[in-house]
Amino acid sequence: MAPPEYLVKIDLAKPAWEQEGVHNRWHPDVPAYKKIEQNKSYKIECFDWTGGQVGNNDSAHDIKYCDLTRIHYLSGPFFVEGCDAGDILKVKIQDVQPLERQPWGYCGIFAKENGGGFLDKHYPKAAKAIFDFEGIYCTSRHIPDVKFPGICHPGIIGTLPSAKILNEWNRRESKLVAENPDADFIMANLPTPQGAYAGLHASEDLKCIVGKHGARTIPGRPENGGNCDIKALTRGSTVYLPSHMDGGMLSVGDLHFSQGDGEISFCGAIEMAGCITIEVSVMKNGIEKLNMKSPMYLPSNLAPKFGADRYITFEGFSVDESGEQLCLDTTVAYRQTCLRVIEYLRRYGYNDYQIYLLLSSAPIEGNIAGIVDVPNSCTTIGLPKDIFNFDISPENDVEKKDRGNCAFSEDDLKEGFSLTDELPNFLLECLKK
Amino acid sequence: MAPPEYLVKIDLAKPAWEQEGVHNRWHPDVPAYKKIEQNKSYKIECFDWTGGQVGNNDSAHDIKYCDLTRIHYLSGPFFVEGCDAGDILKVKIQDVQPLERQPWGYCGIFAKENGGGFLDKHYPKAAKAIFDFEGIYCTSRHIPDVKFPGICHPGIIGTLPSAKILNEWNRRESKLVAENPDADFIMANLPTPQGAYAGLHASEDLKCIVGKHGARTIPGRPENGGNCDIKALTRGSTVYLPSHMDGGMLSVGDLHFSQGDGEISFCGAIEMAGCITIEVSVMKNGIEKLNMKSPMYLPSNLAPKFGADRYITFEGFSVDESGEQLCLDTTVAYRQTCLRVIEYLRRYGYNDYQIYLLLSSAPIEGNIAGIVDVPNSCTTIGLPKDIFNFDISPENDVEKKDRGNCAFSEDDLKEGFSLTDELPNFLLECLKK
Amino acid sequence: MAPPEYLVKIDLAKPAWEQEGVHNRWHPDVPAYKKIEQNKSYKIECFDWTGGQVGNNDSAHDIKYCDLTRIHYLSGPFFVEGCDAGDILKVKIQDVQPLERQPWGYCGIFAKENGGGFLDKHYPKAAKAIFDFEGIYCTSRHIPDVKFPGICHPGIIGTLPSAKILNEWNRRESKLVAENPDADFIMANLPTPQGAYAGLHASEDLKCIVGKHGARTIPGRPENGGNCDIKALTRGSTVYLPSHMDGGMLSVGDLHFSQGDGEISFCGAIEMAGCITIEVSVMKNGIEKLNMKSPMYLPSNLAPKFGADRYITFEGFSVDESGEQLCLDTTVAYRQTCLRVIEYLRRYGYNDYQIYLLLSSAPIEGNIAGIVDVPNSCTTIGLPKDIFNFDISPENDVEKKDRGNCAFSEDDLKEGFSLTDELPNFLLECLKK
Amino acid sequence: MAPPEYLVKIDLAKPAWEQEGVHNRWHPDVPAYKKIEQNKSYKIECFDWTGGQVGNNDSAHDIKYCDLTRIHYLSGPFFVEGCDAGDILKVKIQDVQPLERQPWGYCGIFAKENGGGFLDKHYPKAAKAIFDFEGIYCTSRHIPDVKFPGICHPGIIGTLPSAKILNEWNRRESKLVAENPDADFIMANLPTPQGAYAGLHASEDLKCIVGKHGARTIPGRPENGGNCDIKALTRGSTVYLPSHMDGGMLSVGDLHFSQGDGEISFCGAIEMAGCITIEVSVMKNGIEKLNMKSPMYLPSNLAPKFGADRYITFEGFSVDESGEQLCLDTTVAYRQTCLRVIEYLRRYGYNDYQIYLLLSSAPIEGNIAGIVDVPNSCTTIGLPKDIFNFDISPENDVEKKDRGNCAFSEDDLKEGFSLTDELPNFLLECLKK
Repeated sequence: MAPPEYLVKIDLAKPAWEQEGVHNRWHPDVPAYKKIEQNKSYKIECFDWTGGQVGNNDSAHDIKYCDLTRIHYLSGPFFVEGCDAGDILKVKIQDVQPLERQPWGYCGIFAKENGGGFLDKHYPKAAKAIFDFEGIYCTSRHIPDVKFPGICHPGIIGTLPSAKILNEWNRRESKLVAENPDADFIMANLPTPQGAYAGLHASEDLKCIVGKHGARTIPGRPENGGNCDIKALTRGSTVYLPSHMDGGMLSVGDLHFSQGDGEISFCGAIEMAGCITIEVSVMKNGIEKLNMKSPMYLPSNLAPKFGADRYITFEGFSVDESGEQLCLDTTVAYRQTCLRVIEYLRRYGYNDYQIYLLLSSAPIEGNIAGIVDVPNSCTTIGLPKDIFNFDISPENDVEKKDRGNCAFSEDDLKEGFSLTDELPNFLLECLKK
Repeated sequence: MAPPEYLVKIDLAKPAWEQEGVHNRWHPDVPAYKKIEQNKSYKIECFDWTGGQVGNNDSAHDIKYCDLTRIHYLSGPFFVEGCDAGDILKVKIQDVQPLERQPWGYCGIFAKENGGGFLDKHYPKAAKAIFDFEGIYCTSRHIPDVKFPGICHPGIIGTLPSAKILNEWNRRESKLVAENPDADFIMANLPTPQGAYAGLHASEDLKCIVGKHGARTIPGRPENGGNCDIKALTRGSTVYLPSHMDGGMLSVGDLHFSQGDGEISFCGAIEMAGCITIEVSVMKNGIEKLNMKSPMYLPSNLAPKFGADRYITFEGFSVDESGEQLCLDTTVAYRQTCLRVIEYLRRYGYNDYQIYLLLSSAPIEGNIAGIVDVPNSCTTIGLPKDIFNFDISPENDVEKKDRGNCAFSEDDLKEGFSLTDELPNFLLECLKK
Repeated sequence: MAPPEYLVKIDLAKPAWEQEGVHNRWHPDVPAYKKIEQNKSYKIECFDWTGGQVGNNDSAHDIKYCDLTRIHYLSGPFFVEGCDAGDILKVKIQDVQPLERQPWGYCGIFAKENGGGFLDKHYPKAAKAIFDFEGIYCTSRHIPDVKFPGICHPGIIGTLPSAKILNEWNRRESKLVAENPDADFIMANLPTPQGAYAGLHASEDLKCIVGKHGARTIPGRPENGGNCDIKALTRGSTVYLPSHMDGGMLSVGDLHFSQGDGEISFCGAIEMAGCITIEVSVMKNGIEKLNMKSPMYLPSNLAPKFGADRYITFEGFSVDESGEQLCLDTTVAYRQTCLRVIEYLRRYGYNDYQIYLLLSSAPIEGNIAGIVDVPNSCTTIGLPKDIFNFDISPENDVEKKDRGNCAFSEDDLKEGFSLTDELPNFLLECLKK
Repeated sequence: MAPPEYLVKIDLAKPAWEQEGVHNRWHPDVPAYKKIEQNKSYKIECFDWTGGQVGNNDSAHDIKYCDLTRIHYLSGPFFVEGCDAGDILKVKIQDVQPLERQPWGYCGIFAKENGGGFLDKHYPKAAKAIFDFEGIYCTSRHIPDVKFPGICHPGIIGTLPSAKILNEWNRRESKLVAENPDADFIMANLPTPQGAYAGLHASEDLKCIVGKHGARTIPGRPENGGNCDIKALTRGSTVYLPSHMDGGMLSVGDLHFSQGDGEISFCGAIEMAGCITIEVSVMKNGIEKLNMKSPMYLPSNLAPKFGADRYITFEGFSVDESGEQLCLDTTVAYRQTCLRVIEYLRRYGYNDYQIYLLLSSAPIEGNIAGIVDVPNSCTTIGLPKDIFNFDISPENDVEKKDRGNCAFSEDDLKEGFSLTDELPNFLLECLKK
């Protein structure tokens, strides 16, 4: 048997938007890049989610000024032989690996005014950590004393929408934006021609159409999956994706070396360029057969498993930072849970931005606990003890020591942060240096 | 060594509210029932959460008319020697067992107008399933072809609040209710003397005070834990609870034989009377040491573990049933995920109420996936395949067959449900019989 | 549903050999004690393996002089309705618990001249450790700083042999003894009337027959299972046993709270009186269907699971203590592996007898590694780090401290051990006191 | 950070014995190939164990005539800076991968007269199965309907012996051979100049010395580890190896894509050429500190984990095929266990050689059960159900169907096997074709 065929090979020395086999909008007219056969293994190289905008250095400048219209250069779309609209693509994820020629990745916190993140009210500045890959492990010079194996997975895997579905997306997301004119953050990223990429060989007309109407890649959506950021979609898992077009039109990208549940800092995984190996088959008429309204998957037994008792688990409730009681607001509960972990780890000398990056990128477990006992939702975060090279058990004495720093943007450091009460002390100190 | 001492023994033949060693409100003045020593094992019997209001029969009448002011007869409070306010109680949960003399439990769906539940807009009627315990397994005549081991745990474990904390609870929860006068459901259960129980020997004055101001037990709260419904608090786990009073004043109850993440039907676990074995120690000045604002725990390695690849996992997004786009509403996302599972299992012949009960009581895994990709939150539910005695894998042929029915209330069946479009067909058929 | 029926209740205050529902020989004529129905749960109380010869005290006198003809009072035999010879009994082990009225067990090292054990050349004296049960955990005052959850299981579960099978057992085991007249240890325990017990109501004739010909219970045997000491037969597992008689004639006993692979000290588990809950069904003509020549089982997902990376694993090879090379002798390899662990743990201040007891009773994992690379077999033992309340990782500094002592017999301590070079120093010190 | 440096790159187009960086004997004078630094990641390519003698084809000719003096071309030895004799090398196995340029491996059964295997009395002929790698999974055209993920590991990792140790090896292994002149199989492979390889640049004198005295690589040995075939030494594990020389002198090779406990067919793993990533550190004076007499390791949490309840486990006892009772012979017990699995799987249409290959190469779990109940040792094999694409549960109906065949040697097929009673029928049929 010959080795699996490569469907896409990428050139890290050239911009993503000059290469073939990738696109960055969901639109039914994006042309198929290649045909693939069922039940055959293929390898697909993928860009990191920014298409190479972020460098292996000690500044978060590139994160701060990252162009969010030029992201998610997905490999594909692939036309699966024998697949029609109404079928289901069953995609077996056989492997996900970093590129041998680029053995590093990064985790970023986006500035509140450029993408933001789950805790952006508290931590509004851009920041970054570089992770080096050593075999299946990673370490970061920006978050010392931490090491863990990757649960590599694609952040994005999905199918092209039909015209009808695309219209529905644009309707409901525009409505949300329209009804919230005073929102202090971007509630949804609507279509924009800026930065849109329909593939190397797209005609001017097609570019225009895809740019104007093509759905942005940032949210995952029930109809096609997409940007779900589910760490369980790791090597060995199988994902079931609805097909809305002839050929299914599968695209994949945004590979992560590792990620915590929630991917809370937004660029929150360890983002990497890499290679995914997949095998696809088709379940005829599967959408109807399975009553499928959103993707499902079979998890893998291959993910690294810390012992069930090797976590410290934190609880958070839907009472917000100001003591305001929310009613069953699980998002607020999860935010509280994140803050509890930050408060806990801060004791060891990490600063809050470092912990925020760590929570985003390490394999933390985020669970729903209670969601019915009015007015409090309760969520939990399990923090694996064994990613630290010191013992973080509650009983242990705490050694608060210098744990270095993550990368910030020179502009922020220069001009002085617009400091608020929420800002951590270390930033003040950073600025004084 | 002598066997562990029993701190509380309950009499199943008498009402809970005539027995000593239990109380059902959180108030600093509830008197300690007994003193306990550190680092010593104790056994504590606990009532089921309704104090015996629900019977082993085939009617949901008792659920429909359950008196929600007379619930959560917690065993305790226990005064831990050597514990002061500001310390942390470290409670090792050494075992949780059903009572040998009552080897069954129940899962209930509360009527929308009496407690409700996570899916009460869809399933507004009361329903019930009885589970029989066979060793560590359970089965239900009301949900046939299902069997699973229990991850037994206390639904409630917490400490008495200080007066200051109690005031804060009453302030913020009253404010929520006051600010939402038009809510179509009860947003918070405020203090009420009705059904309040401060212990068998409480004076009239004390009863009055506890009734008027004592916090209700329905929500868990960050300050003392309480009703967190975390299935991970099973035998072998250790929970860290803040102490706000001399002696810590620990109470525990609402034992569950099993529960799914979210406990979605509200009375959603397999509720049981049982016995918990605990050992307590004190971390002096622990609240400050750990920066603790809400409880944390160390999970156990003793819970039943289905293989990592023995789940089917469903995804749900923050687009609601009507197609409305919500912005990062994780509660809506989790509701969608629940509905996806119901739609999937319905194919086998279970009716929606049965599945709703099953999702509540079986060890489903509810996880946060993505929580930053505006506007969609994404949550997942892992449904263990091995709890069914048939194969529910997506590839398998579906045999839709008669799977019996759960219990309803005669009143509902008699008068005819107030049917709405959302109501499942089977109810129509029930009524016709 | 009524609670499961008790098939056997034992009286701890009376000798086992005066009670009904138990027997201690394998013979086809032992009368059925009770009939049981298929697919129904039953509870069965069982004696500890010595029928109460061993006490909760600090002397190993009872171990030293234990009467090995009066052991293994198995509960049963039970006649399974609908079962014939040639069928298979499928026994679901639904629970195994200690008796609430006797929350302790023991692990013993038998003297070389009375039963011996896997390392009896090195450790020829009787010794004992008492374990106290605290919920699902145990601790021992004789092996301090150790605590672990039990993987409770029956040491013995089997079916009565047919006359033909019994004859074959007696033939092959007698042959082994006859051909090794100079063996310095007992190679097989042949039938003896001494201590034989065929049940309370057995006639004199039957007693005589069973005593003369009934197979001893010490070895497990392929034809009926019996004394297999497989810790995986814990709650939640299912064992398939061949039936050689009408009714299958199932017996069970020798319950263990916990055990390491190999049960190396012979009385090597934490032996306890307890209660097992089972449910039996019959696979008609199963022996032929499954080509079954020895029992098989489906393990459980309910056993405590230390994290896969929470073990230290030791390797042993078939080169014996004197440097002699054996050819693929896996028994010698496993003995070497045991010795490696003893050498490692000795550094912390435990004496060798304590470690020997610990290896026998704690959930160590004993695996076959290589068994084909002449001349060395290689076996491994995984020692769970988390059973110790200090960190035994190789990198850690070793604190050698007083770890107390296990129990010995007064007779040994008085007369002075017959010391040899292999004997550990601590014994010398014991004697000097 | 630069990608890890490659210490060895191999050329698959040239014989192993013409390449640098490899050797195939254990001898203190084998010169260090390269120096390595502590705490730094390196990549090392390794030949398959036969150095390329086996091809991807449908004949076992290459297995039958494999030259066993020309095997185990280990990569190394590597001189670890800062390491002396008496220290311990702590080798972190960070990754093990097949070569992208050769995505296949093989499992072989060696002929009884050329290497043999654990069941060679039953299955004396050479046979082979080729496995193709698809991501982290493998399948074999020679054993259809089977698929599983690899637990990749080095079959051999060890250190050069000191002269004293080498002498001891030669003494004890020669003694074994000398004392068993009539053995009907090779009990130990003693040194031979034939096929010896001391590295590309070895002088004639050195070649001569290493050939004459250098220890063969077939057995693992307690003093240096070597050929232990422990599947737990997979990515993420850490192995502790004693250093007997300046620099430790580490060598590694014989990579396996997967292997069952025991590696029973001798060439029993899925043998592959591949690449291992390691990081080494030194524990000064470690041998004395740890009382180390043989290697130990910390297993990984990264190996594929079938659910604990997804195995069928078979029991085997020390009663041999002819009904002869052995006394605590664990090797015989394990052989019986293997035969029980073969008998079970034969029902599905696989022939015995296919199953023998499968047992060797798939991740079966081989455990010691009881090793003290004279006269029977009891061992178990856990066979994972989920490697089959059909359900092998005992309850299921058995579909016996054509499962193809493994590869044999033309010579055997031509001349007719020297058939014996033990030989399976399919071979007769093979010969008739």
